[in-house]
Amino acid sequence: MTESVLPPRRQRLAAAAALRGAEIFIATQRPNQLYLLAGSQHEDPSCVISRGNCAAVLFHHRAAEAGETVVFPGAWISNACRDLLKDCEVVENHLSDPPPERQLANRLASMGPRRVLFDQLPEPMANAIAAAAPSIELVEDDFVTTLLRRRKDEEDLTRMREAARIADLGMQTAFAQIQPGTTCAQAISAGTGAMLAAGAESVAMAPASGVGTYYLDSGEDPRRRIEEGDMVFIDMGIWVHGYLGDMTRAAIVGPGRSQQRDLLDTVQQAYLQSSQQMHHGARASDIYQSVVDLYARSGWASFFVHHLSHGLGLGGDVPIVARGSDEILQKGDALSCEPGCYVPGLGGARVENMIWISDTGPVELTQTPLDPELAS
Amino acid sequence: MTESVLPPRRQRLAAAAALRGAEIFIATQRPNQLYLLAGSQHEDPSCVISRGNCAAVLFHHRAAEAGETVVFPGAWISNACRDLLKDCEVVENHLSDPPPERQLANRLASMGPRRVLFDQLPEPMANAIAAAAPSIELVEDDFVTTLLRRRKDEEDLTRMREAARIADLGMQTAFAQIQPGTTCAQAISAGTGAMLAAGAESVAMAPASGVGTYYLDSGEDPRRRIEEGDMVFIDMGIWVHGYLGDMTRAAIVGPGRSQQRDLLDTVQQAYLQSSQQMHHGARASDIYQSVVDLYARSGWASFFVHHLSHGLGLGGDVPIVARGSDEILQKGDALSCEPGCYVPGLGGARVENMIWISDTGPVELTQTPLDPELAS
Repeated sequence: MTESVLPPRRQRLAAAAALRGAEIFIATQRPNQLYLLAGSQHEDPSCVISRGNCAAVLFHHRAAEAGETVVFPGAWISNACRDLLKDCEVVENHLSDPPPERQLANRLASMGPRRVLFDQLPEPMANAIAAAAPSIELVEDDFVTTLLRRRKDEEDLTRMREAARIADLGMQTAFAQIQPGTTCAQAISAGTGAMLAAGAESVAMAPASGVGTYYLDSGEDPRRRIEEGDMVFIDMGIWVHGYLGDMTRAAIVGPGRSQQRDLLDTVQQAYLQSSQQMHHGARASDIYQSVVDLYARSGWASFFVHHLSHGLGLGGDVPIVARGSDEILQKGDALSCEPGCYVPGLGGARVENMIWISDTGPVELTQTPLDPELAS
Repeated sequence: MTESVLPPRRQRLAAAAALRGAEIFIATQRPNQLYLLAGSQHEDPSCVISRGNCAAVLFHHRAAEAGETVVFPGAWISNACRDLLKDCEVVENHLSDPPPERQLANRLASMGPRRVLFDQLPEPMANAIAAAAPSIELVEDDFVTTLLRRRKDEEDLTRMREAARIADLGMQTAFAQIQPGTTCAQAISAGTGAMLAAGAESVAMAPASGVGTYYLDSGEDPRRRIEEGDMVFIDMGIWVHGYLGDMTRAAIVGPGRSQQRDLLDTVQQAYLQSSQQMHHGARASDIYQSVVDLYARSGWASFFVHHLSHGLGLGGDVPIVARGSDEILQKGDALSCEPGCYVPGLGGARVENMIWISDTGPVELTQTPLDPELAS
């Protein structure tokens, strides 16, 4: 393939498929489908391929310079797909049609490739293809996911900055509601409304308040009235143009106890220390261990119970920084940094920011101060 | 078991388990877990068992008058579980502990029952139990789900009315924003904010506008400005005390075309006709066919592409009214009624209300008029 006009992500994919002797690549995972359709196909594929309703996107990388793309909507997909997608064929799926995996199998049978590469091959799809075209070799390779999703380009960065900006807006709006007597419901109502109005496609804000041992997605009653001495903890996941915006802040309501302030200070220090280590070439295991060591020195080690980072982009993603990770961080990686401690009798504390690794080191996409402003 | 103090749902479950020779019932599905914990255990179990993070709730129905309940949190569950659940044992799961299914298997081995009944038995759990206690017979019976979830009692009805009330509030708030120049994002921001502030635990509002062929969860861009002549279509799913609130409204912006009004009138007529048939003893297939016939007479039959109803309660639920359903509706059933038509060049139209079947027939839990008020 010379003088290719394929966008870089498709070029990488075409090279990977060729290396594996496959003429066709099929994406069944939504983030990979979105990456494949991004750019020339539609300005914002997340508005077209909604909520996991696309059975497959087929990329026939040897067919033509620009590649050939066929979309197989799922049984429930919006017909908007047909109306909105440009430059690619959409196979309609009406109620009376065979299921999408059978449509895909029939299409493959008529194309007659020797080998097809999948990011993930669901069993019903494998069975349908085996029945319709038994001679085609089906290869599943999760490396493709890493290839497509891990290295973020300029457009990804623009979109991730936008997701981070809207998340900042929502978090600051939510914390500005917090004072004794208000509820977490009031805070998330204000924060969620602001983010939806600013263009978030969907929002999940998980709040917790009190001095319990809440962590991650505590289900504590959002209607409970916040009291002086509570810790308040708000995590969120939002989607903007298909990209994840993800952040967490925690605060003490009123002066609180010195142990609560100690906890929060230590968590913030853990964030600063670990995020500054997120350079090209850094070992995930070293970064994780440095947080474990810091919490051990402070006496909180047994309350640091989860991963430190996950990738960001069109999905929760690679790389993961957690106990046992053997990843090496690379420039172009985008990931969260979220050391959290949840202590019975004190409350939950976490800082979570979005980080992008540039040539010169970690860049914070999240802008909200580590100590958000509460209502005064 | 004489003079049982078990709540009715546990009585039914105990009888079903006894009939199957099982001493212990284990719920792995969240709605069933919530039904088991409702009442004496916690005022609002949905605040405790958050988002699918509970591995199992064990109900030892022969152990004591009130039964014995053991909760096995998942690896990610909020520790709030421990703080907030009353009258039942919570098995803590720390990072250094074996996974919850192993904890469950060990517990079962020490209890030594002959037979255990599951609503659904995940493979890792089956393997763990087979390894720890190979002599215990494991029975999976989905009938238990129907038994626990289908017949709604007074408390369910109260909660479902509350979910419907908050959904009404959100829908009316959202449509009150709609006029040429506004975006769906503005409408859902207002509606979502109102519902969260009113006590909804989470909200998903799926809007669509335009004259495309959007249906169900159209992903069309929420930032698009609404134009005169658009159809606007808003579906939502909200959770209130763990109960699903679910409704849809559609409207024409401005006078629109006569075909659009015809479409909307026909959809509303289909709703009225089919909801009025939702009596104890009615056949799902008859109700579905009557909608197909009505759309056929009106010329829209090929655009009626999905189910007519699904159950409501602590989850999307039974019964289903769709092509091929063989259900007989029963008093105590709660279900949606949502005939929808999505026509290229006109837009999407659906009415969806929440219905409960009383002794004397269908009761509408949803109160918003079929034609919601737009901004004026």
